Amino acid sequence: MSQMSGDAVGVAMIGHSFMGAVHSHAWRNVHRFFDVPRTPRLTVLGGRDERRTKEAAARYGWDSVETDWRAIIARDDVDVVDICTPGHTHCEIAVAALAAGKHVLCEKPLANSVAEAETMAAAAAKAAREGVHSMVAFNYRRVPALALARRLIADGRLGTLRHVRAVYLQDWLSDSESPMTWRLRKEQAGSGALGDIGAHIVDATQFVTGDVLTGVSGLTETFVRERPAPGGTEEVTVDDCALFIGRFSSGAVASFEATRYALGRKNAMRLEVNGTRGSLSFDFESMNELWFCDGDDPSETQGFRRIVVTEEDHPYVGAWWPPGHLLGYEHTFTHEVADFLTAIGTGEPASPSFADGLRVQQVLGAVESSAAAGSQWSDVLPGT
Amino acid sequence: MSQMSGDAVGVAMIGHSFMGAVHSHAWRNVHRFFDVPRTPRLTVLGGRDERRTKEAAARYGWDSVETDWRAIIARDDVDVVDICTPGHTHCEIAVAALAAGKHVLCEKPLANSVAEAETMAAAAAKAAREGVHSMVAFNYRRVPALALARRLIADGRLGTLRHVRAVYLQDWLSDSESPMTWRLRKEQAGSGALGDIGAHIVDATQFVTGDVLTGVSGLTETFVRERPAPGGTEEVTVDDCALFIGRFSSGAVASFEATRYALGRKNAMRLEVNGTRGSLSFDFESMNELWFCDGDDPSETQGFRRIVVTEEDHPYVGAWWPPGHLLGYEHTFTHEVADFLTAIGTGEPASPSFADGLRVQQVLGAVESSAAAGSQWSDVLPGT
Amino acid sequence: MSQMSGDAVGVAMIGHSFMGAVHSHAWRNVHRFFDVPRTPRLTVLGGRDERRTKEAAARYGWDSVETDWRAIIARDDVDVVDICTPGHTHCEIAVAALAAGKHVLCEKPLANSVAEAETMAAAAAKAAREGVHSMVAFNYRRVPALALARRLIADGRLGTLRHVRAVYLQDWLSDSESPMTWRLRKEQAGSGALGDIGAHIVDATQFVTGDVLTGVSGLTETFVRERPAPGGTEEVTVDDCALFIGRFSSGAVASFEATRYALGRKNAMRLEVNGTRGSLSFDFESMNELWFCDGDDPSETQGFRRIVVTEEDHPYVGAWWPPGHLLGYEHTFTHEVADFLTAIGTGEPASPSFADGLRVQQVLGAVESSAAAGSQWSDVLPGT
Amino acid sequence: MSQMSGDAVGVAMIGHSFMGAVHSHAWRNVHRFFDVPRTPRLTVLGGRDERRTKEAAARYGWDSVETDWRAIIARDDVDVVDICTPGHTHCEIAVAALAAGKHVLCEKPLANSVAEAETMAAAAAKAAREGVHSMVAFNYRRVPALALARRLIADGRLGTLRHVRAVYLQDWLSDSESPMTWRLRKEQAGSGALGDIGAHIVDATQFVTGDVLTGVSGLTETFVRERPAPGGTEEVTVDDCALFIGRFSSGAVASFEATRYALGRKNAMRLEVNGTRGSLSFDFESMNELWFCDGDDPSETQGFRRIVVTEEDHPYVGAWWPPGHLLGYEHTFTHEVADFLTAIGTGEPASPSFADGLRVQQVLGAVESSAAAGSQWSDVLPGT
Repeated sequence: MSQMSGDAVGVAMIGHSFMGAVHSHAWRNVHRFFDVPRTPRLTVLGGRDERRTKEAAARYGWDSVETDWRAIIARDDVDVVDICTPGHTHCEIAVAALAAGKHVLCEKPLANSVAEAETMAAAAAKAAREGVHSMVAFNYRRVPALALARRLIADGRLGTLRHVRAVYLQDWLSDSESPMTWRLRKEQAGSGALGDIGAHIVDATQFVTGDVLTGVSGLTETFVRERPAPGGTEEVTVDDCALFIGRFSSGAVASFEATRYALGRKNAMRLEVNGTRGSLSFDFESMNELWFCDGDDPSETQGFRRIVVTEEDHPYVGAWWPPGHLLGYEHTFTHEVADFLTAIGTGEPASPSFADGLRVQQVLGAVESSAAAGSQWSDVLPGT
Repeated sequence: MSQMSGDAVGVAMIGHSFMGAVHSHAWRNVHRFFDVPRTPRLTVLGGRDERRTKEAAARYGWDSVETDWRAIIARDDVDVVDICTPGHTHCEIAVAALAAGKHVLCEKPLANSVAEAETMAAAAAKAAREGVHSMVAFNYRRVPALALARRLIADGRLGTLRHVRAVYLQDWLSDSESPMTWRLRKEQAGSGALGDIGAHIVDATQFVTGDVLTGVSGLTETFVRERPAPGGTEEVTVDDCALFIGRFSSGAVASFEATRYALGRKNAMRLEVNGTRGSLSFDFESMNELWFCDGDDPSETQGFRRIVVTEEDHPYVGAWWPPGHLLGYEHTFTHEVADFLTAIGTGEPASPSFADGLRVQQVLGAVESSAAAGSQWSDVLPGT
Repeated sequence: MSQMSGDAVGVAMIGHSFMGAVHSHAWRNVHRFFDVPRTPRLTVLGGRDERRTKEAAARYGWDSVETDWRAIIARDDVDVVDICTPGHTHCEIAVAALAAGKHVLCEKPLANSVAEAETMAAAAAKAAREGVHSMVAFNYRRVPALALARRLIADGRLGTLRHVRAVYLQDWLSDSESPMTWRLRKEQAGSGALGDIGAHIVDATQFVTGDVLTGVSGLTETFVRERPAPGGTEEVTVDDCALFIGRFSSGAVASFEATRYALGRKNAMRLEVNGTRGSLSFDFESMNELWFCDGDDPSETQGFRRIVVTEEDHPYVGAWWPPGHLLGYEHTFTHEVADFLTAIGTGEPASPSFADGLRVQQVLGAVESSAAAGSQWSDVLPGT
Repeated sequence: MSQMSGDAVGVAMIGHSFMGAVHSHAWRNVHRFFDVPRTPRLTVLGGRDERRTKEAAARYGWDSVETDWRAIIARDDVDVVDICTPGHTHCEIAVAALAAGKHVLCEKPLANSVAEAETMAAAAAKAAREGVHSMVAFNYRRVPALALARRLIADGRLGTLRHVRAVYLQDWLSDSESPMTWRLRKEQAGSGALGDIGAHIVDATQFVTGDVLTGVSGLTETFVRERPAPGGTEEVTVDDCALFIGRFSSGAVASFEATRYALGRKNAMRLEVNGTRGSLSFDFESMNELWFCDGDDPSETQGFRRIVVTEEDHPYVGAWWPPGHLLGYEHTFTHEVADFLTAIGTGEPASPSFADGLRVQQVLGAVESSAAAGSQWSDVLPGT
């Protein structure tokens, strides 16, 4: 009865905390809903602690474990490497995996620095010439409402874009006494809110507009400079929030804010785009809705429409339930994995590419440069 | 690596369309998120058409198929029977399965008539004495926001209840030209909007209030009396909408409306409850939110709070993602299956029981009686 | 500089509490915004207590006072009588004023019984033949969003109507200890929530649909049967809430609820109408918004539009501020008075007429009959 | 019957377009609702065109007209001068009026440049020593919801503030073909969106936080550089939008955006403030609502509360209607005038003072400096 066949691909996933749980779910279920050309086999789970990795493998349905990522890359039964580790490890693992001919799905942000991202993008470009695929896991591109937003903009429904505004508001660090984590150490996380959630809104706005940021002016702040840690306190070495304004190549102006201190906002990743013909608005806390104002409507009946993005003709939605039955957070990963398997099966390039990930990294780098130089305007350097 | 062990239970599911797809997902994934005392094995899928059933089994991950439900019940490797067929078949299958010592999960509404529901409830009560469990699949009880609503009311946060109002608004029949389906035939579906979605709001209001309706006055209407069918048209023999008012045993008054003709409302299952100390409001189109007005707040800062029901201390939520990461429709089934497996493992009664399903059926029956008698008040008869 | 001229009309207002304050504001300001054919002069204010009436006259800008309403009707300098007293006095005053050739604006509900309303409607019809105008003050018809709703329905934008649902939710009696008022005495108020706020939703739904209710089934309840009063407690002799379902002559079905016990709802007068081509939704707590779902939009971009009803081409709005500058509660009275002065000036009939008020009274009467007879269906008797 | 008495003040208003209409309404009605120590007499209306000014005086209820503002200031029957003219005339008129001992209410922004604002603030400070009052008409301080926001923050309900974000989004210039107006000429308007609506959010955030901005980094853009004008086109010489980020003296970080090109947003003046103990959110398109998240609530029931700001204990509201009866745009001016008359009557300083107006002007100036210098950080210079 198994649907798996000769076209199966062996998947290895490295890392098994939050992202590992949700990626596992996607790999385990994707072919139950999407007609993917390759069926994933959950071949091996990688983690440093053998006992905990075995527990996770049993929990999430992986066939085996490895404690050394190099051993994973060396395995013949592994076709795909899915990197769910902290950012400072991405570059080394991804470059080695690509060199070994493995398709690579890498969590975001692509890297902790522009230099690393450049190395990875170059490795991905080289691998692509050998038919090896790579993708950076900006899963919010797979929210149906945001995929619909991109489609409407690409179809010209907004006309020429003038304004982009995006915030990503969380509050899980609002309590000054919440403990230290790796996400607050520069050497592991690269940056704080900027790289973790700011990266999402930079990518999402570039995705829905089909355009790129060319320059920014920003500031960052660290509100809580020490946090409880085993044996006392530990210094926080990343930003707690980042605010920046910028310009897109089209001439649209933009504003961005990323913070984990917006008390009461749990996951408010919000976008609004205003053009000459229409406007779009989105809030991830209501992720099944897209608000669209059609400027072609007469003023008597013009207004933002609450589109419940659960219709069969909406992106990704046809694979799931009838209209009005909401999707959740983890569906975005299932969509992501479906798209990646489709790229592998068809040979078409996967998107977002490592070059797209680099583009985001360059924006984050420009924000950091600007913030370090009194908010002075900082151009986003062209990608390699 | 498999997590399955000697404590696995063999599951058989009968029916494989919409409900079959979502139940399969729940059985396949429940133990990946919840620490259930029994791990489900997807043993056999039942369906009348062998080819289509085999396709569904491959798609959804079932080990084998049967085309006769009696063969399923006869199998030794089946511990649980999950009934996802149209309502007119529930009674016969459930009674036989229970008699054979199988635990039974049955889709809602429990039956197409009060008489059938009474038979089923009696069979369930008898089986329970043998340690055989049964549950009716009112999955909306497992929406975290509604489970939280019940908890707040049980904790006295609303005081004495005065008002309950509930609507279930869909629009998939709004187009008069949409084709005939089994859901519009009385002999298969029992009733129309009343039994399909009205049943949900009757159960949900009884669940969150912890109370029962004692009498109702209602009307029903069929807007489109013929629909396109192979070879011409076919008569619609069920209601298109049902409206009724009623009283709870506590003295609270209530209003209900179920329709599939509310253009633009995709799945607006809405509840509001007002008590002497507070109020609650819910809309399934925003299923991760519960609105709570605490009457103990001073008037200066009193108002309905939008609670994003994704905190770790909210019902069911701890098994999933961090705060602010939304759940979707299918999670309610995973929660349902987790609760059923827990009941089986612990020996505690499962809820909602067939007696609860009968109680809903009696309300639906009273609505039909009232509608047939010029909306005259109709008492809800006590359950057996 | 005065804009007043030979075409001024002398206005007398009887009653000076809540309604008196807001009517005064309308009479005082209407000609500052609307090009009305008659300019009101605030000639005389009527009230039983001379001292309090004089204070109110000074506060609200009336030229003189009278303590006997018969003296007001006898005055030659009074052209218009505006009745803002409790319901049990409406009939006598209005009939006398009309007989004296005064134009009459009467607060809602028109009367406390169908019989009184019939008398008044007959008097109004007779007076109309003499060129004397009358209007019942259902001010919610002058909310721009509801006037727009009526226009869209009249234009066919909703197609054939199938569903009407309306609630009017307040909470000012939610506290069982809040004191007795005249509004809770049957002999003065006629009924409770039913006549006070239920009347508004009956009129508003008949207004926006351009249709009439033909039958209803209802129930009423009194939650708090005694309230604090000077020297002890006093019995509440009216309903605290009324719930009913009904049918419009077009075949649309409807549900209604009026209560002052919905904790947290301050003035939630809500309407929704679903037709074959579209739907409309409104909430008086957001009175500048109308939500419209256009069923002619393709499913990809269909959804309820939030129309901010402040555009120049929206009803009444052109007289006020630029788009996006909200109107409030009292504007509805200014619009009402503008329309009444226009009727007087042009000789066109004012709307809503006393016949419209009677039609509402008949519906309220049918609800009371049904509630008294076990919710049995009660036809709305044809108007005289 | 007149409430006017020896304590009346003669008011002169200069300018009679949009602001003139709404100020007239406030002067005409303020004493009908508020117990002000001085009753305004609408003595004289100033305007350059005699015919149009006379028409406006008749329409709005002014006793006389003048075509030269110097003649107004020379009149003995004028106690208060209300300046509703374009920004480039404010300084000269206000300084002269103050020197003549007239109380001055001046529309915002206070001036078109920091230098002018400094001159005006100095004149106001000097006049204050003579008992002459002045106030700048930032009417949004008189939105009850924003006055409540200030009160909650002052009461410590938000704790230490970390984030302020504010946008003011309109769309009336979105159409490139809409014609030229004085608001798009630098010599009259000073700046575009920045001074017109950006000034409002700068003042409102400084008002609700009780704090001041100390530095900013910004950019401006002009999307449509020429617009239709009599005889052809005319160059637009002001900004179409302004975006900036900044810091408050408390350490809170902030972002701002002002535009008239946000298609579909009619008057979306939005504020959000996040502190260590709570958050507040406001949108002028729903001006009767304030959203408050109380961080002291347990996570189970924490969320943003929709406070309908119409309770008797909310600022300004007690003078109007019962709970749930909304106020509109013009009420903010009535509140403003009530506060100004109270200051005149009691001798207490009026707020916002010209010094407050200067503080806003300095922020606008810093934004312009930053935008002209590649978004470089620009300190807000201390007030005189």
